Amino acid sequence: MNQFRRAGLALALALSFGAAGAQSFSDADLAVAAKLREAGQASNLAYELVDSLVTEVGARPAGSANDKKAVDWAVAKLKSLGFPVVRAEPVPLKAWKRGEAHAHITEPFAQPLVMTALGMSVATPKEGISAEIAYYPDFATLKADTSDKAKGRIVFVDQKTERAKDGRGYGPSSTARTQGPTEAGKRGALAFAIRSVGTDHDRLAHTGATRYAEGVPAVPAFAVSVPDADTIARLQRYGKPVKMHVSLQAELGIDAVSHNVIAEIPGTDLADEVIAIGGHLDSWDLGQGAIDDGAGVAITAAAAKLILDSGAKPRRTIRVVMFANEENGLDGARAYAEKYKGQKHQLVAESDFGAGPIYRFQTRVRPEALGVALVIAEQLKPLGVEAGGNEGRTGADTGVIQRAANLPVFSFSQDGTDYFDFHHTANDTLDKIDPAKIRQNVQVWATAVWLAAQSPVAFHPLPAVEKKPAQ
Amino acid sequence: MNQFRRAGLALALALSFGAAGAQSFSDADLAVAAKLREAGQASNLAYELVDSLVTEVGARPAGSANDKKAVDWAVAKLKSLGFPVVRAEPVPLKAWKRGEAHAHITEPFAQPLVMTALGMSVATPKEGISAEIAYYPDFATLKADTSDKAKGRIVFVDQKTERAKDGRGYGPSSTARTQGPTEAGKRGALAFAIRSVGTDHDRLAHTGATRYAEGVPAVPAFAVSVPDADTIARLQRYGKPVKMHVSLQAELGIDAVSHNVIAEIPGTDLADEVIAIGGHLDSWDLGQGAIDDGAGVAITAAAAKLILDSGAKPRRTIRVVMFANEENGLDGARAYAEKYKGQKHQLVAESDFGAGPIYRFQTRVRPEALGVALVIAEQLKPLGVEAGGNEGRTGADTGVIQRAANLPVFSFSQDGTDYFDFHHTANDTLDKIDPAKIRQNVQVWATAVWLAAQSPVAFHPLPAVEKKPAQ
Repeated sequence: MNQFRRAGLALALALSFGAAGAQSFSDADLAVAAKLREAGQASNLAYELVDSLVTEVGARPAGSANDKKAVDWAVAKLKSLGFPVVRAEPVPLKAWKRGEAHAHITEPFAQPLVMTALGMSVATPKEGISAEIAYYPDFATLKADTSDKAKGRIVFVDQKTERAKDGRGYGPSSTARTQGPTEAGKRGALAFAIRSVGTDHDRLAHTGATRYAEGVPAVPAFAVSVPDADTIARLQRYGKPVKMHVSLQAELGIDAVSHNVIAEIPGTDLADEVIAIGGHLDSWDLGQGAIDDGAGVAITAAAAKLILDSGAKPRRTIRVVMFANEENGLDGARAYAEKYKGQKHQLVAESDFGAGPIYRFQTRVRPEALGVALVIAEQLKPLGVEAGGNEGRTGADTGVIQRAANLPVFSFSQDGTDYFDFHHTANDTLDKIDPAKIRQNVQVWATAVWLAAQSPVAFHPLPAVEKKPAQ
Repeated sequence: MNQFRRAGLALALALSFGAAGAQSFSDADLAVAAKLREAGQASNLAYELVDSLVTEVGARPAGSANDKKAVDWAVAKLKSLGFPVVRAEPVPLKAWKRGEAHAHITEPFAQPLVMTALGMSVATPKEGISAEIAYYPDFATLKADTSDKAKGRIVFVDQKTERAKDGRGYGPSSTARTQGPTEAGKRGALAFAIRSVGTDHDRLAHTGATRYAEGVPAVPAFAVSVPDADTIARLQRYGKPVKMHVSLQAELGIDAVSHNVIAEIPGTDLADEVIAIGGHLDSWDLGQGAIDDGAGVAITAAAAKLILDSGAKPRRTIRVVMFANEENGLDGARAYAEKYKGQKHQLVAESDFGAGPIYRFQTRVRPEALGVALVIAEQLKPLGVEAGGNEGRTGADTGVIQRAANLPVFSFSQDGTDYFDFHHTANDTLDKIDPAKIRQNVQVWATAVWLAAQSPVAFHPLPAVEKKPAQ
């Protein structure tokens, strides 16, 4: 319902600003948009880029040897695609490196556990930790616990992740993952474990970053697979202590340098205004990083390549950014925000939600540009994309950049119904991408980015953001 | 179409033998059948049995410590259910034990591989084997190869498994798994690898027994997950040697004793005629053995328990058998065939295809019993089960027993559309069982077994089997 209200609002605003007429696109620009949609339908480039990246490099956690290979791959690939500007910009970071990790139930019945350390987790002692489990059905129950139940135990939070097209189930459970170790540490727990943040029923654990609050003891943190979480839950019914042994090794704070890899199509008369689009080049170490986020870098690069190959010259500069270390620190986004602060951005937009089809287009542009935004939305309808409103939000990397300078945003909602089946697991492999669906993404991006580049109206500056009162 | 022809034949035979009338069931027996269907609808016992087995024991490879625990669990559980006869019959066997195993691609691009040793595989040398891969798109191509391509290499067979309701895709690919190492050994290969025999796209490898022919060098044998097989296939296109390192440890020929666990409801006037139903108690080591074959032992035990609780006394003896070591040798079935040779069997029937709903009932009974079989089929129709013909085949364990003495058979075809997604993997866990579907299995089994016990006609002896000419 929110969406409809937003869309209504957008339309009302557009009409009140007199969007139609003078402030629309030339027939030539609209003809290019139609050509891009058609050319996108015939191109397999995005799929081929993911294939090349995951086959020739594979997993590429930030700061690793494979991360360097990925940067080299990206520079070479973008050059070979013919982008006139290609560069790699250094991003210093503190890397985290997974070591061996094992856990199993020792009582009341011995059971192996499929588990994985969470990113940034501290290690256990070499000999591991053996302790009783303190079971919490969800994160709220842990946060509300004022007893000493967790003390000296391994906290287990059995927080489930809701399956939803728009991925809204991820919010609550990823919060449990990031804040859980702190809540466990506060209560004197020895370690923190969580049901994998995932919608699948596979015997594969989901990793993902966690963090520790200042002044709270940092406890080792890991996720068990969904079926293993079910086993732990079933063990509660026997009315006996459930005991676990866990050993988890990890290295923290490794000095490393990665790179944001950038390709540009320089603009013509409005070259100083930038359309920054991209995804992140790094991936978790467990899978191949196909949907997270090979897809995003491939979709945005392939969209720019379609525009490049159309022969049409964009007025504004189109910049594809393959960000460094999204997963475990957002260092690439912060480096970009710092380097390009003060540069005019027509918009920022990110693809980091797999390769499911885009079903909705939202914007965040200044009111004077709403009419143009509506015309762009019209141009996306043939691709099965509905118009949303003007309260578009962006991804993790471009979110950092957007908030730093209150920049305009394009937001493309993808169908992520199955995204969290595979996200952050060994199952993030090429076969999870449907060539037809990733193709639709490229068509949408190319069309929208081209029109944004040609817009007769700047999308910036946005009205100043009102600070919300603390809740 | 075959099915229809068979059903037609059965009907024709039934009519010609004058099946209706005198040779049918009493109203009282049919009333019990109706009560069993109803009682089965209200019972969760089969699901609860699998839950108990996988939660309290878990994986139970033949000859392991957990196999002993499973035997103890089964004896205690069957006694607690109130079966008047419960016993465990020793089954000596040679066990196989998995050790550490790893494999990865070294050239042209380093890639980890998710893999698992095949059951009965010999080990590699401690330092492993490094060699070029000889790629075969399927097993037929390997068998047809008269070149020296495989010599000194690691044979990789990329045989795909077709998804099908009746599981027919398993035949060709499990043949590749069992015979592949021999074909590789004959050609001087150093090792044999296969695309997992599975219909999933999960990063989990499928194990399963393999074997070696006499007089052929035995080479280490393993399966890689489906996405990893895809990666190996993609690496072929670079036109460069694809090299692999594999290390695989295993122990063979371990002297062990397991047990067939048996529960009986003794018959009344025809107690010397046995209805032997069951599944196998052992499982592979990777998962929890929920669908393979916790489901089968639970379905057949729960069906017998329904009959026991009905208060009705079966004329023939109903015997539930939980077989030892189906997976890696069929030792339990052979021990049973030997011990009970000469005993009259009204029928043998096996549940070893997961917990999907039963959609078809087939028999293999002597012609004089076809009318009765058709009445039983009628009684299963309210449960959504269609009548098949009289050429029913049975499972791996009861197959051994059936062939040894040409015994009658009941065959219940289950929907196995997703069975090979999980089969022989770590993903064989309780959550893969739908309580409503396993309940339907119990209703079908209880109804059919009860009526077979009351049949006015013996199903045996079958006409002598004609030996087929060698093909």
